[in-house]
Amino acid sequence: MSLSDLPKTIEFLVDNEGACSLCMIDQRKLPHKLVRVSLSTYEEVIDAIACMLVRGAPAIGASGAAALTLWACNQSEESNPDDFAIHLRKVAAEIEKARPTAINLSYEVHRLYGLVHEAIEMHERLGEIKAFMIEETQDLFARDEKVNRQIGKNGARLFKKKSTVLTHCNAGSLATVFFGTALGVIYTAFEEGSIEKVYVDETRPVNQGARLTAWELSRVGVPSILICDNMAASVMSKGEIDAVIVGADRICANGDFANKIGTYALAVLANHHDIPLYVAAPISSFDVSLSEGSQIPIEIRSSEEVCSSVPMGVEVYNPSFDVTPADLISAFITEKGVFSPREVHGMLQDEQ
Amino acid sequence: MSLSDLPKTIEFLVDNEGACSLCMIDQRKLPHKLVRVSLSTYEEVIDAIACMLVRGAPAIGASGAAALTLWACNQSEESNPDDFAIHLRKVAAEIEKARPTAINLSYEVHRLYGLVHEAIEMHERLGEIKAFMIEETQDLFARDEKVNRQIGKNGARLFKKKSTVLTHCNAGSLATVFFGTALGVIYTAFEEGSIEKVYVDETRPVNQGARLTAWELSRVGVPSILICDNMAASVMSKGEIDAVIVGADRICANGDFANKIGTYALAVLANHHDIPLYVAAPISSFDVSLSEGSQIPIEIRSSEEVCSSVPMGVEVYNPSFDVTPADLISAFITEKGVFSPREVHGMLQDEQ
Repeated sequence: MSLSDLPKTIEFLVDNEGACSLCMIDQRKLPHKLVRVSLSTYEEVIDAIACMLVRGAPAIGASGAAALTLWACNQSEESNPDDFAIHLRKVAAEIEKARPTAINLSYEVHRLYGLVHEAIEMHERLGEIKAFMIEETQDLFARDEKVNRQIGKNGARLFKKKSTVLTHCNAGSLATVFFGTALGVIYTAFEEGSIEKVYVDETRPVNQGARLTAWELSRVGVPSILICDNMAASVMSKGEIDAVIVGADRICANGDFANKIGTYALAVLANHHDIPLYVAAPISSFDVSLSEGSQIPIEIRSSEEVCSSVPMGVEVYNPSFDVTPADLISAFITEKGVFSPREVHGMLQDEQ
Repeated sequence: MSLSDLPKTIEFLVDNEGACSLCMIDQRKLPHKLVRVSLSTYEEVIDAIACMLVRGAPAIGASGAAALTLWACNQSEESNPDDFAIHLRKVAAEIEKARPTAINLSYEVHRLYGLVHEAIEMHERLGEIKAFMIEETQDLFARDEKVNRQIGKNGARLFKKKSTVLTHCNAGSLATVFFGTALGVIYTAFEEGSIEKVYVDETRPVNQGARLTAWELSRVGVPSILICDNMAASVMSKGEIDAVIVGADRICANGDFANKIGTYALAVLANHHDIPLYVAAPISSFDVSLSEGSQIPIEIRSSEEVCSSVPMGVEVYNPSFDVTPADLISAFITEKGVFSPREVHGMLQDEQ
């Protein structure tokens, strides 16, 4: 395996004159073309998140915070901190709305907004505030990789020699700044000899498994087998899957979590076949303000995504995520360690 | 609802000079084009079955028997019945191999071959034998619709007022000569006011749900909602599905059955959500020579079917069917009545 073949998903760049840009892989064009785009306004980032040019909970979290910094450094024309603060709040609210389900987007935007707000209250000057936002954004990008590598180490211990695992959607390097969550665990476990091969769910309707995960795994040399989503049960029934590992878009206080549509089905199927289900996610994916999964807003996307081969006028239902109840989850793998759903609350309190 | 908008899937035609042809909808072109092809050799029928120009267990059963008659009436050059019988046997064996999983293909080919063999042993003349084969093929085509309408009547009784049902793949008119099995039940129940709407699984990788079932249902005016296969669990968890109804490619003596890949997943998911699973199929789909599902040959099809959006060189596993164990099945709906898996054996013995 060669992780050096894994490209940076998003980079935050600052030029000599203090202008910032966000450079990201256009994931809609993968696997056919590896193309990067450079964004310099927060509106461009909102569009990129909404159309899934960039996707994956940690990646859109980092992009959202960066969008706030792009506004501050490239677009804001305010000359006093109070006006800046008012406008910043409006921009933050707009960014947060780009996609509703993953908590990471609002988590990172809120976090940066909160820090800036504190700095303004401390009577920092605007130039210093902008420099601070750049530094915080750079830290966030560096932290993302560090957190993912720690998730990888913590999770890799769960796999016995030569395991075959199944994953859904893309919780890979492409879903983060770099390295990935669920795939980060797979990369680490593969290097340690604990993963033999990975079954990859196609993940309809946007095919993140077929287009992104299969691409990532083949690029770094992890053996993978692509299946349609509806084949997972059949492969499980043959005893070929030792574990299911996925990412998360939002995890509630009780351990219920939202992830790409189809995750709940896999959880029921894994449970039926006595196969553990692991959820790999950073602490920033937890939202203890929600007591249970039914409170998570589920994004309903356009019927166009489903409809390529379909007669016009057919009604389509296209929820982008589903909610898996805590009792179907074997463990959460985070940068702070591995926890059962019951332990989530205590783990997060220790954190605070 | 207007069933007159449902086109004949396959027709067996004989011209004034005794030449036969098999006219069928090219299902690969649906829903964009409703195109018919006319086949006059058994090799053309084998190709049509193998490439899924025609598909669906009862439809390929009828097509297989018709292929034998096409050979006899259009292609055979034998002048004596014994040579004819030897060649007929070879042709029958070739037709049977076109696709392995659905028992209907070999059932109908064997049945017709057996009747012809008897006729030859009775010293019938070749001209009479060929006329007999035409008559038997016409009877089979007429019987298919009659059987399906009876399955429809028997199954419709299972639904309470305004049910919402979920179906997978296409067990519709397009899977039979006319009317359909699972969709035949839906059409009958809809006319009786017992079906409000139908969720249609897209059914990857060949999209029979999106391309064929959604097309059939919209053509006759049954309200339907298309979903990706991985969304079914989420819809079930919201309490929106009253029953799952599917067709079958082969049903074993113990009630295990093979059907389009993804059926087994639906069965586990339906069971988890306390939703009944009904299997609508003619008696010709039962194969009591197999005691259990693990003995059913599962066709593995080309990776091309899965691969449209995927990097070259990615390994793909593409089983076309899976096996659902009897304990997940609420009832079989046949032309002889509605039976639990435990009753299959007795029901078939009464039949013999």
